[in-house]
Amino acid sequence: MKTFLGIPDDSFIRGKIPMTKQEIRILTIAKLCLPEDGVIADIGAGTGSISIEAALQMPKGHVFSIERKQEGIDLIKANSAKFEVNNITVIEAEAPDGMAELPELDAAVIGGSGSKLSPILDLLDRKLKHGARLVLNCVTLQTISQASDWLRKAKEEYIYEIIQVQVNRWDQIGLYDMAKALNPIFILTAVKK
Amino acid sequence: MKTFLGIPDDSFIRGKIPMTKQEIRILTIAKLCLPEDGVIADIGAGTGSISIEAALQMPKGHVFSIERKQEGIDLIKANSAKFEVNNITVIEAEAPDGMAELPELDAAVIGGSGSKLSPILDLLDRKLKHGARLVLNCVTLQTISQASDWLRKAKEEYIYEIIQVQVNRWDQIGLYDMAKALNPIFILTAVKK
Amino acid sequence: MKTFLGIPDDSFIRGKIPMTKQEIRILTIAKLCLPEDGVIADIGAGTGSISIEAALQMPKGHVFSIERKQEGIDLIKANSAKFEVNNITVIEAEAPDGMAELPELDAAVIGGSGSKLSPILDLLDRKLKHGARLVLNCVTLQTISQASDWLRKAKEEYIYEIIQVQVNRWDQIGLYDMAKALNPIFILTAVKK
Amino acid sequence: MKTFLGIPDDSFIRGKIPMTKQEIRILTIAKLCLPEDGVIADIGAGTGSISIEAALQMPKGHVFSIERKQEGIDLIKANSAKFEVNNITVIEAEAPDGMAELPELDAAVIGGSGSKLSPILDLLDRKLKHGARLVLNCVTLQTISQASDWLRKAKEEYIYEIIQVQVNRWDQIGLYDMAKALNPIFILTAVKK
Repeated sequence: MKTFLGIPDDSFIRGKIPMTKQEIRILTIAKLCLPEDGVIADIGAGTGSISIEAALQMPKGHVFSIERKQEGIDLIKANSAKFEVNNITVIEAEAPDGMAELPELDAAVIGGSGSKLSPILDLLDRKLKHGARLVLNCVTLQTISQASDWLRKAKEEYIYEIIQVQVNRWDQIGLYDMAKALNPIFILTAVKK
Repeated sequence: MKTFLGIPDDSFIRGKIPMTKQEIRILTIAKLCLPEDGVIADIGAGTGSISIEAALQMPKGHVFSIERKQEGIDLIKANSAKFEVNNITVIEAEAPDGMAELPELDAAVIGGSGSKLSPILDLLDRKLKHGARLVLNCVTLQTISQASDWLRKAKEEYIYEIIQVQVNRWDQIGLYDMAKALNPIFILTAVKK
Repeated sequence: MKTFLGIPDDSFIRGKIPMTKQEIRILTIAKLCLPEDGVIADIGAGTGSISIEAALQMPKGHVFSIERKQEGIDLIKANSAKFEVNNITVIEAEAPDGMAELPELDAAVIGGSGSKLSPILDLLDRKLKHGARLVLNCVTLQTISQASDWLRKAKEEYIYEIIQVQVNRWDQIGLYDMAKALNPIFILTAVKK
Repeated sequence: MKTFLGIPDDSFIRGKIPMTKQEIRILTIAKLCLPEDGVIADIGAGTGSISIEAALQMPKGHVFSIERKQEGIDLIKANSAKFEVNNITVIEAEAPDGMAELPELDAAVIGGSGSKLSPILDLLDRKLKHGARLVLNCVTLQTISQASDWLRKAKEEYIYEIIQVQVNRWDQIGLYDMAKALNPIFILTAVKK
């Protein structure tokens, strides 16, 4: 099983839960600047695709994946088995529940926050080491705005950047390469000073 | 029945044929610079949504809509009835067939060209008046490239611009405005000198 | 002087104030559904490009253009003269100042709101007729979020849609058509019930 | 010097030559699936930013960077020194010149092809191993179309995907996060069967 960053989407065992697409997963992992022996949290881990890629990039590190839905939890475990990943711990909870037990973190990624972004950020703030990175992926105006608001209030402690990434695939349909849009994703990266 | 430019998508009678979305339709009509008494052709008219909007903007003008599929032809007629439009003539043919009979044109729009873009452009070239505008909408690399190639060869006679427009809708899902991408469209506008 | 919707950007007299680009202007005017004899307000009118297009589309109507900067005011007047438009009244103020004197409105467009979006929306709410349309163009997360928040609180009175439009121009550089991005714009359209 | 994938743009020594932006560089490297001991070619290496990132990802591998402009060659060398990279060989030539001497390749990236894409692809075809990956970045319709044409003719030997990636940065301007578009980039990835 190769462990290049950028596992194709269809290599993951998938259910009905939306999965972060390959290009966004690649950018997310890169923005996290994962140390080889890092300890990170994946909040709202969904199918676990980001957890898996992170775990593969950190053979001496550890990923704590928090997910509330049983289907997601099962997928994370199934994908961990498929990709022979042993350094993921699944926490079955709806964040911020389950976060108190986390150790100090080198990085955190938020893929889903229910409607509890602020308490999640408050708790992460206590866990993230100086220099740690936080990456948030989202598709809603409200989530990115709330994250920006939180970081602006914490501007003594964090610097951040926001990008919005839109990937169009060009499907091969007969003689043509035809545009097929994917939904644009906001990727916020914050660094704790 | 109001006749503002920009009829909502769901006001049209629609079948299974893909329909140009409202924003692209608005930009297409604007780029055509339709004279009130203009004579235009809509090649590959599909559901007729562009023909209808053009006809409504040219109460003293006329639209020739060329469409090969029976479903499309029926939809153009049904939409003409719904919007009380009397200045559309449907030509049941696969362009460039059916184009020889067209009169001189003030403008033309190409929404679909099968794989016959070059002969369609050659024929339109003979019909378009000086100062006439040609607008082509497409979603494939090959179509926009071929159109650009054709226009570059005809650069003594035409000037053109190409834009690519991507519209993301932000659907209201509970407490959130959530991004939903539409496919990006190339809009080529050429003016005959 | 032709009065097609969609005046080319370089036909306007321009200063250093950023100007809404042609495609966004076209979509904005279309979303406003301007009645021929409508009365509308253009808040933060900038160079007046939207005011001019609206005035040309409403030969029997009237546009009140509110602009705080002297350069903007001068440009609106210069462009009104150039396009022979007589149905624009410039109000030299920083909105919401200057808005109390507005008559009842068929539509309003907000192109700039300083940091006073909420009081501007509160005042417009008193001026907009039932069925009137409000279109807001913006390039910041905060403005679109605040507008969405305001409309969600007023959901008994308004329905709204948000789109984000990104236009890429393909400049002709030698043998190539080369992509040049324009900044993406949020266009919010609200209809008062 | 850290060697995470995704060196910030402003860490590179830059001249007037356009540089691939960080997010596109990250995706390019990921799509290349670089083996740790791989041998790759970077055609039209420009400032060398992709060569540097590739070299850092392949500590036991080697990068051949072909660049025609003296400014580019100087920048590649300066950046190699800055990032303490010893596994880059600069070939001072305008591709396809200089390519005949390349060894068998595990991967190739084309960042610039002048107007010589076809002969470059023909030559690469002879150098790429089975299973090797070719990634082409471009911003013009003609280059992506020509590459697609070439690959469609070689469809017995290659599979390919095309994506178009658009990144919008949200700059922090006072109280606002404001959209700033980057030009959209086509990223073509081909795998030799």
